[in-house]
Amino acid sequence: MNEASRPEEITEAVVVASFGACSDARTRELMQALTKHLHGFVTEVRLARDEWQRAIAILAETGGITDEHRQEFVLWSDALGVSMLVDALAIERPTGTTESTVVGPFWAAGSPIRRFGNSIGEHSGGDPAWVFGRVTNESREPIAGAESDVWQNGVNRLYAVQDPDVPEAHLRGLFHSTRDGEYAFLGIRPTPYPIPADGPVGRMLAATGRHPWRPAHIHVAVHAAGCESVATHIFDADSAYLDSDAVFAVKPSLVKQFVPRTLEDPDRPSGVSGSWYSVQMDFVLARQPDRAE
Amino acid sequence: MNEASRPEEITEAVVVASFGACSDARTRELMQALTKHLHGFVTEVRLARDEWQRAIAILAETGGITDEHRQEFVLWSDALGVSMLVDALAIERPTGTTESTVVGPFWAAGSPIRRFGNSIGEHSGGDPAWVFGRVTNESREPIAGAESDVWQNGVNRLYAVQDPDVPEAHLRGLFHSTRDGEYAFLGIRPTPYPIPADGPVGRMLAATGRHPWRPAHIHVAVHAAGCESVATHIFDADSAYLDSDAVFAVKPSLVKQFVPRTLEDPDRPSGVSGSWYSVQMDFVLARQPDRAE
Repeated sequence: MNEASRPEEITEAVVVASFGACSDARTRELMQALTKHLHGFVTEVRLARDEWQRAIAILAETGGITDEHRQEFVLWSDALGVSMLVDALAIERPTGTTESTVVGPFWAAGSPIRRFGNSIGEHSGGDPAWVFGRVTNESREPIAGAESDVWQNGVNRLYAVQDPDVPEAHLRGLFHSTRDGEYAFLGIRPTPYPIPADGPVGRMLAATGRHPWRPAHIHVAVHAAGCESVATHIFDADSAYLDSDAVFAVKPSLVKQFVPRTLEDPDRPSGVSGSWYSVQMDFVLARQPDRAE
Repeated sequence: MNEASRPEEITEAVVVASFGACSDARTRELMQALTKHLHGFVTEVRLARDEWQRAIAILAETGGITDEHRQEFVLWSDALGVSMLVDALAIERPTGTTESTVVGPFWAAGSPIRRFGNSIGEHSGGDPAWVFGRVTNESREPIAGAESDVWQNGVNRLYAVQDPDVPEAHLRGLFHSTRDGEYAFLGIRPTPYPIPADGPVGRMLAATGRHPWRPAHIHVAVHAAGCESVATHIFDADSAYLDSDAVFAVKPSLVKQFVPRTLEDPDRPSGVSGSWYSVQMDFVLARQPDRAE
């Protein structure tokens, strides 16, 4: 019989006995390590029945709130630092290439293709910010036609995927770099925002005395043929919460100065009729390893 | 800044720094242990980005398949041995009291109240089984009016909550013990069944070479004033899979002989018109600890 009454016998029956015959080595490793650590947690805290029931209810609620516009499981992963841990464990990029950070739950497929220098705003609001730079490979050679997928939150703190009152394309865009590897777009100076606090993750933050705020940032995911893609942020160096990002995603190399510019500045982008900001962020992509087929 | 590039720095930032200020000691203990073991798992297996994405997708799918009739998160807990581990870690019952086992995902509120000895079947099918015994306290004194909530699967392997073709009350019932603590009902001899294999848990079992079968059993949850409730099973001693229950729930004290009886047997219950079985299971409930208010 597999019956086991003592905790360590149950763990042994699950981890060793039940998964020991799994023929796929990686699946076996994942399931044995997952159940070992899961049982380790339950045993260490002597998880009570009512706590287990609450955990099951929280998982079901997380599932219920998740849909194509909201991914509360990703939010858990972000808020518990798991997303950044997976990022840190990924194969190391060569020194000098752009560091990655969390994708977060607000990326969505189908960003509108826009032209060099165009605005990503479909709606008014926010201080204009000219975001520009160059996409290169590790040897600092410009990459033409590299795709930058950008998305950022509005002044009301919401991303377009969260906000029924703005067009889906608001503050999103796909840009392709020039022959010289240059990209540019007109966004807005980002503002800090709280991660969604009306669900299970928000309740966990409140219950543990953590705040839900993220420092101001713009998301950019850069893709180019022959290179490793990178999903990253441009953080505003003057933002609050750089030292306590709710999802642990700040890296010093991603923090950039938003430089104040005036109406009279000859570089003023078209469509800007007041003061504005500019911020430079270059992207250095790692070479994709040759794939032996 | 809280930025941390090395895996162990990220774990430290989450476990120690972010939850260190939580004022509720138990919540702090739970969240710190949870994230420590979660990060321990991710780090030990060096979870890859695509594996993380698959895990998020599996969690979302688990949420999507869960509703009032199906609780796939409980099924995960059962199939990974977590439910039985929580059961084993619960405060020890006095020796001689009835052992508990998993509730499983098929219990539902609102079982129909039935009279002593009545049938729980609302539909034909299955070999009649007379289930009887006595409910007592630790001192073996009979408990009158103890409530037994019973549920079992049909010959088509399904519980009523899974089966749109039978009434909701089929093979379910609430019984109250007599003045002498006796209870009895007419069920059917249980048959093994596979846990639901058409969802994420079923795919995990298939991928790891585990079978989904549970040995034949009848569920009983017993409640009585002043006593600890117990949710348990009556396992059929002749069943297959007693040595490899998919949810690790077998305990020797819960395995009982279903005794073959004949049509001519003078004890034949009313409504039985062929051969039948009988099985005895006594329930011994622990005294509820005094609650200081």
